[in-house]
Amino acid sequence: MPELRRDPVNSRWAIIAPERGKRPSDYLYKEEGSEERTPENCPFCPGNEHMTPPEIYRLNGEDGRWRVRVVPNKFPALQDYPRLDLTRKGEVFESMNGVGAHEVVIDSPEHTRDIPDLLLEQIESIVDTYVLRLKALMENKAYRYVLLFKNHGKAAGASLAHPHSQIIATPLIPSEVQARLQSSKAHYKEHNRCLLCDLTAEELRVGERIIEEANGYVVVAPYASRFPFEMRISPRVHAHDFTTLSKDERQGLAQLLQRTLARLKGLLNDPPYNIILQTAPNPVLMEEQSCAQISLADYYHWHIEIIPRLTTMAGFEWGSGAFINPTPPEAATRYLRDTDLSA
Amino acid sequence: MPELRRDPVNSRWAIIAPERGKRPSDYLYKEEGSEERTPENCPFCPGNEHMTPPEIYRLNGEDGRWRVRVVPNKFPALQDYPRLDLTRKGEVFESMNGVGAHEVVIDSPEHTRDIPDLLLEQIESIVDTYVLRLKALMENKAYRYVLLFKNHGKAAGASLAHPHSQIIATPLIPSEVQARLQSSKAHYKEHNRCLLCDLTAEELRVGERIIEEANGYVVVAPYASRFPFEMRISPRVHAHDFTTLSKDERQGLAQLLQRTLARLKGLLNDPPYNIILQTAPNPVLMEEQSCAQISLADYYHWHIEIIPRLTTMAGFEWGSGAFINPTPPEAATRYLRDTDLSA
Repeated sequence: MPELRRDPVNSRWAIIAPERGKRPSDYLYKEEGSEERTPENCPFCPGNEHMTPPEIYRLNGEDGRWRVRVVPNKFPALQDYPRLDLTRKGEVFESMNGVGAHEVVIDSPEHTRDIPDLLLEQIESIVDTYVLRLKALMENKAYRYVLLFKNHGKAAGASLAHPHSQIIATPLIPSEVQARLQSSKAHYKEHNRCLLCDLTAEELRVGERIIEEANGYVVVAPYASRFPFEMRISPRVHAHDFTTLSKDERQGLAQLLQRTLARLKGLLNDPPYNIILQTAPNPVLMEEQSCAQISLADYYHWHIEIIPRLTTMAGFEWGSGAFINPTPPEAATRYLRDTDLSA
Repeated sequence: MPELRRDPVNSRWAIIAPERGKRPSDYLYKEEGSEERTPENCPFCPGNEHMTPPEIYRLNGEDGRWRVRVVPNKFPALQDYPRLDLTRKGEVFESMNGVGAHEVVIDSPEHTRDIPDLLLEQIESIVDTYVLRLKALMENKAYRYVLLFKNHGKAAGASLAHPHSQIIATPLIPSEVQARLQSSKAHYKEHNRCLLCDLTAEELRVGERIIEEANGYVVVAPYASRFPFEMRISPRVHAHDFTTLSKDERQGLAQLLQRTLARLKGLLNDPPYNIILQTAPNPVLMEEQSCAQISLADYYHWHIEIIPRLTTMAGFEWGSGAFINPTPPEAATRYLRDTDLSA
């Protein structure tokens, strides 16, 4: 049974998930000769649908075959429990049962093609599925935050090669999200404007970190990029909630996502990366807070982070929380901008 | 010239260090066939002293040969500048020049032997050097924090195989350190006791996460361990400042450090790991604050973190700041405790 434990020293939560059951011998060969899966034994490939837990959702194409499937994670980090149990052990240790959800979005039937190489229509289906599942999970009031992410490549944490995304719903607002909410709120209080709107305006004025502006979105290399070739995609006009995207906005995003990931693939020979959606916390909960003076809808601005995994997190980063980035975002922008997308 | 940039979205600093000069081509082959160095071309091996920048410190053995050398990092993340220049660009971007220091401690003349396999006397020399360099760097009032860490193995960020440690002095207190200071302070305010002293008392009472208690130190698998087989070493009796250790305390630590890393090596076949010293911020600065009602010396407790690098940081961890740990610390404790140290 997964359990959430609070670290009293760092005020940080860890998910202890023994179902994933790792004994020392599981770590001995970290090169992980890795059961390289072929389409024959890949649980995400057409024909092997029985290898996944029972389907939560499927989006069919006009030919009647599935285009996107959503299934529960076989080794969930968090699970659906009837209620949240908080436990306090002595004066210092806090724990709660791992209430939540952990879903896998199988991005397409294709075993080897990821977003840069799929048909645009397929990427639109993926984005549509994201919106739909996030909305569905946010119906549950126990889920304070729903995090969507995608790991591309083994070094980015993808344990199965077949392209997929993941959604984890958590019973608390994660510390990274809280940090964003706080800085956005503070900025709004001071300036009566959205932080990301201000950032984007300044980036557009300066220009040197703008990789692309199209379809109502802006792609930038963030000013204080922690990682080489890090990118942020955000809507040009203020919007706090990813799940309210119109059909047009979803199509525009699908196209830009493809172009942006194609830049990364072309420039860096298909590097490993993580994609993270940073949308507002559960709107069901927000409504409860609608009497508050400042509205989350005003101060929060949804965005997508793309983190190429080219550098190694080492002792300095763990110990300080600061990152050493050898590639200035202005240089990264020039390289990314100049990448040939016709290939 | 290294530059510190503040990320306004996450209130987090990044060090942009273009001297480390990475162009896209530097990242293309991330398997890094790696210029495996042999003692002949290793800059840290005896006979190659001319390959490092000019020595900062050396500790000689009775035979007149060096046992430990300290040299500047060839590609420093931070450098010694005459003064700290803060720049504000527009309303949203803040930057400062990368004031600080970045030193490398060459742990021993041995190219392949790390702490588990060195003579105890040699490890004492390493700990003595740590104390000495930390003290020396804290003389500089511009350095608010001095972080000592050691990366073991390529996957933990060690770019050179010859065992070494690093010290980075920063012009601000890093966010990870601030989080610890805050939680420690809050606990002290509420209970009038040190947080880590309370934690240790509770751990000793419960017992299930105590790996070893010896020489005045306790080795625990932290309650909310983020990583499998994570460990924390802390002094049994309250102490906030690593640099004030007596000869006896340094010897005791050297021995326990060796035993603890030998457990890890024996159990997990020499895995990659990071070691991080979490000591109090620069005491020179603390003295200035001595009029404050609560003293850092009372509420902060120094400790060492050991982070084995067996799991991959993926989208969930980056997006949430929370970690999924498949090995409960109680299980890790049993394995680590039972590891044969006579080998």
